[in-house]
Amino acid sequence: MRRIIVFEHMSADGYFTSQDGTLAWTVPDEELDRMGAGGTGGADMILFGRRTYDMFESFWPKVVSDAPTAPDPHAEGRATAEARAIGEWINAATKWVFSRTRKEVSWNNSHLRREIDAREIEGLKRSPGKDIMIFGSGSVVSRLTELGLVDAYDLIVAPVLLGRGRPLIDGLFSSHRLKLAEARPFRSGNVLLHYERS
Amino acid sequence: MRRIIVFEHMSADGYFTSQDGTLAWTVPDEELDRMGAGGTGGADMILFGRRTYDMFESFWPKVVSDAPTAPDPHAEGRATAEARAIGEWINAATKWVFSRTRKEVSWNNSHLRREIDAREIEGLKRSPGKDIMIFGSGSVVSRLTELGLVDAYDLIVAPVLLGRGRPLIDGLFSSHRLKLAEARPFRSGNVLLHYERS
Repeated sequence: MRRIIVFEHMSADGYFTSQDGTLAWTVPDEELDRMGAGGTGGADMILFGRRTYDMFESFWPKVVSDAPTAPDPHAEGRATAEARAIGEWINAATKWVFSRTRKEVSWNNSHLRREIDAREIEGLKRSPGKDIMIFGSGSVVSRLTELGLVDAYDLIVAPVLLGRGRPLIDGLFSSHRLKLAEARPFRSGNVLLHYERS
Repeated sequence: MRRIIVFEHMSADGYFTSQDGTLAWTVPDEELDRMGAGGTGGADMILFGRRTYDMFESFWPKVVSDAPTAPDPHAEGRATAEARAIGEWINAATKWVFSRTRKEVSWNNSHLRREIDAREIEGLKRSPGKDIMIFGSGSVVSRLTELGLVDAYDLIVAPVLLGRGRPLIDGLFSSHRLKLAEARPFRSGNVLLHYERS
């Protein structure tokens, strides 16, 4: 059975996106980048809300095309090897985008879905393949949490108080108990909280 | 110099209070209670918003008066020794309540303040005494964070997705960088994230 794994940056005061919708507030972290680049082998699919898909589509293809022709670790402003590895994985992954407003999607292996259908997602989890990731995409995370279809949550808590922004999960009818599997501080001050469904 | 220390329960999805305003969603934790009972010696004052004060005033005096006349660790529904120690400390502490609606406060050592005045709080921190705690009281935490007057944040992150509620800090004009001092998981699945001002 494929797992659905949510991976999110959060501020210490519980926001997952600032007012401007970017991740400019997150704290750079080489340890975390290495973990991310090393962890992509276990998954081959991504579920997106429209806003996060737009952001990824405008960012990651550039990172991949920015690959240097010769190794030069000191080149400024150039994507790191870890970022390129993540970009190549995202580019290759099967991408489902939940949106009622987008007319089409053209990025590699992208598929448009009008809405989240519980049976379709259950079928997806039973289909052959690796794990399924979600980044950002608060509305998708909220809905799949409500449906009990998320298997694990990796929350990267940044040592930052944003003081305003959007909560990751909103509008649930009831609370959901989780099981803490790991609490791992990084040298940057980021902390990974890894939860599994209880 | 007295420090101002914020101590809060938060859900994994970043809410500090559920829709009903109670802490019924928090995860019981004997380790945490012992830490709380042991940690009260370093502080002798509490700052409150009106809502949290109302809740504390209706709860903690009962815990203290519930003290058994003879030791009986097996008595059901009876306050634990840790809860009584915390209740007695709260009862004795100097309590400032920020409220424009309350007419008076009668609980032991309580004082009413109409608004948060930066100079008054700075004077308080320079005055003789132990550290100053804040529990709950999101509006007070938001305002003192904005003013740069909070020295440390102890956030107890519960293994629970609340899915709706109030964020701890709201309406800040800019973000604030913190320094992670400790990330400590408890057996219950709660995690203490201890931050200091950067």
